[in-house]
Amino acid sequence: MIRQLADVFESYGFEPLETPALEYEEVLLGKYGEEGDKIMYRFEDLGGRKVALRYDQTVPLARVVAQYGSTGSPQLPFPFKRYQIQPVWRAENTQKGRFREFLQCDADAVGTKSVLSDAEVIAVAAKALEKLGFKNFRILINDRSIFKNIPPIAIRAIDKLKKIGREKVLEEMVQKGIKNEQATYILQSIEQAKPTERLKQIFSSLEKFGVEPLKYEFSPTLARGLDYYTSTIFEIEIDGYTAGSVCGGGRYDNLIGMFSGKDTPAVGFAFGFDRLMEAMEELNLFPNNLTSTKILVTIFSKELKEKSIEVSSELRSNGINTELYPDEEVKLDKQLKYADQKNIPYAVIIGPVEAKNNTATLKNLKTGDQKTISKEELLKIFSFA
Amino acid sequence: MIRQLADVFESYGFEPLETPALEYEEVLLGKYGEEGDKIMYRFEDLGGRKVALRYDQTVPLARVVAQYGSTGSPQLPFPFKRYQIQPVWRAENTQKGRFREFLQCDADAVGTKSVLSDAEVIAVAAKALEKLGFKNFRILINDRSIFKNIPPIAIRAIDKLKKIGREKVLEEMVQKGIKNEQATYILQSIEQAKPTERLKQIFSSLEKFGVEPLKYEFSPTLARGLDYYTSTIFEIEIDGYTAGSVCGGGRYDNLIGMFSGKDTPAVGFAFGFDRLMEAMEELNLFPNNLTSTKILVTIFSKELKEKSIEVSSELRSNGINTELYPDEEVKLDKQLKYADQKNIPYAVIIGPVEAKNNTATLKNLKTGDQKTISKEELLKIFSFA
Repeated sequence: MIRQLADVFESYGFEPLETPALEYEEVLLGKYGEEGDKIMYRFEDLGGRKVALRYDQTVPLARVVAQYGSTGSPQLPFPFKRYQIQPVWRAENTQKGRFREFLQCDADAVGTKSVLSDAEVIAVAAKALEKLGFKNFRILINDRSIFKNIPPIAIRAIDKLKKIGREKVLEEMVQKGIKNEQATYILQSIEQAKPTERLKQIFSSLEKFGVEPLKYEFSPTLARGLDYYTSTIFEIEIDGYTAGSVCGGGRYDNLIGMFSGKDTPAVGFAFGFDRLMEAMEELNLFPNNLTSTKILVTIFSKELKEKSIEVSSELRSNGINTELYPDEEVKLDKQLKYADQKNIPYAVIIGPVEAKNNTATLKNLKTGDQKTISKEELLKIFSFA
Repeated sequence: MIRQLADVFESYGFEPLETPALEYEEVLLGKYGEEGDKIMYRFEDLGGRKVALRYDQTVPLARVVAQYGSTGSPQLPFPFKRYQIQPVWRAENTQKGRFREFLQCDADAVGTKSVLSDAEVIAVAAKALEKLGFKNFRILINDRSIFKNIPPIAIRAIDKLKKIGREKVLEEMVQKGIKNEQATYILQSIEQAKPTERLKQIFSSLEKFGVEPLKYEFSPTLARGLDYYTSTIFEIEIDGYTAGSVCGGGRYDNLIGMFSGKDTPAVGFAFGFDRLMEAMEELNLFPNNLTSTKILVTIFSKELKEKSIEVSSELRSNGINTELYPDEEVKLDKQLKYADQKNIPYAVIIGPVEAKNNTATLKNLKTGDQKTISKEELLKIFSFA
């Protein structure tokens, strides 16, 4: 999964970034609200330095940009497009799908206000999902400016629309002190809002980026919880996976500037890695066979061991991932059982007859079929597989 | 580097393993000697749990094997061959090439005493170095049983032979209370020792694994500091890189049993990742161009933006890593400068004439040469590059 995601990101010119697990506490504290400070892993190291474990990947990105910027050493190329796939830590109670250490997967473009960047990061997220095998998903897109002049308590209520329904949203608004009539008016005006100029441009670019129009839609009631987004926001939902969106992102033009003291616009997204995995599992997108090993070369006897080593080396030299059974004193049926347990599809056996004739017996471990073939034939079969 | 190493490990049937950064303190404490306990990052988490940051990858491997073993759920295939490339943390004073967080890269085969495994892990280490581009290196191999009946203080002195020379080794032995004559006798007897039966088998297998005989040698004075090795030990030195060995490993048949309570032999090695990087740098093995991006598609004007998006999407669909300049309002020469800074070798320009004729101008950013070609030709050039 990580490799496939990285391949897509790199195909768009996003470069990999890794930041250290430990940051100075002061870099992270106060950036994630009260709750964030509470569940951040923090401690004092032996040198009396107050440190904290990475809590997300956006603040470390901001720190790196502020530290090296477009003028530091090494100098960052600007706009700076990076992806980052690393663990983060949160001292929460664990539950199904929620761990104290989990992987995050972010891609961001820093240093441009361009609407093209907004469209591109959305396209990258879509292409990444396609690469993982997802066929049906919906990208909900909105612009924060839709909520101009709407009180924050109303925005927060509207954000829950899909989860709790219209009635409850209106109820919540009224509870928070908005008059009944006004609440209905606000909700309706949002529901009937038209795409902004920025969104129209994004929609027209997305198709050129090769994203099918069926896959994205304007969703005026999408608000996204975090307050730092400034215009474009989006979320991606996988059809048939109901546990929530697997991707969220948008434009945040002020956050990085808080570190760097310079105007530093940015746009990006994060995949929920554990949700992605769960969705892939539920939709059966993982291959049956996660091992990349194609062949187990067994060892017939101590005397014939070197023949097996040779054949395994030849297969590998031809680019075929080949495991040699690692113990020359184990019986053949146990070796084959091992291949089966590791989901290795084929086994090669080199007994005395094969050794004499310079052949090998190739056994399909799923069907049980086997045939004795020349070494050349063996190499040929798998080089074109 | 990580990908290339992973590719080699997987070509031999080693599977990737990742363990959490935080382990319970009791798992790690006391496993690395007094000094290890001292420089281990330890703290109490919010739940009052005493935890510690990963200090190496061998103890977590032992913990995983003991926890899941060959009977746990998920059950591990046995022999269990895994590689692991993750950061570890040590609260040391930083200096050139020494950091508090650094990457380790281990590969081990657990659950077999087979001499074949010893030879295989040595071959894997050699192939990994070749994959990174190293041509000349020496694998020093020894068997701990050579040191049977030799007092540990003498072994520790002999281990320094290459660093400090014969004189100093003898001096140290005498200082530690060994008689002069005896010290000379011990050193000579080690220097003249013959390879053990196990080593002879390893040497004869290594050639079959495709490791050139020039690259490995019997080194009877090699001792390796850590005490847990039980028979085969080896180190790899890169010709022309003098800062020390880049790889060390061997057989350790008792360590994992200390966790699992079961006899669990193992053999493996670790690369010093930072040294590897340093050696690659010194020997100029890093490609000039670390970006995988082949082309920057520039944006001529806001009106022609969608043409550029289209071409970039087509290039990408043909498997060509292509960056689209992310800002439509930046001047062309600044876009080209950006490509240069990112070491992207080619730029594509689609101006009004190109848009009209359905062509593209391809510019070689190293030579400055440019030519206007059809889109089909453009795709062809890079699809076969």
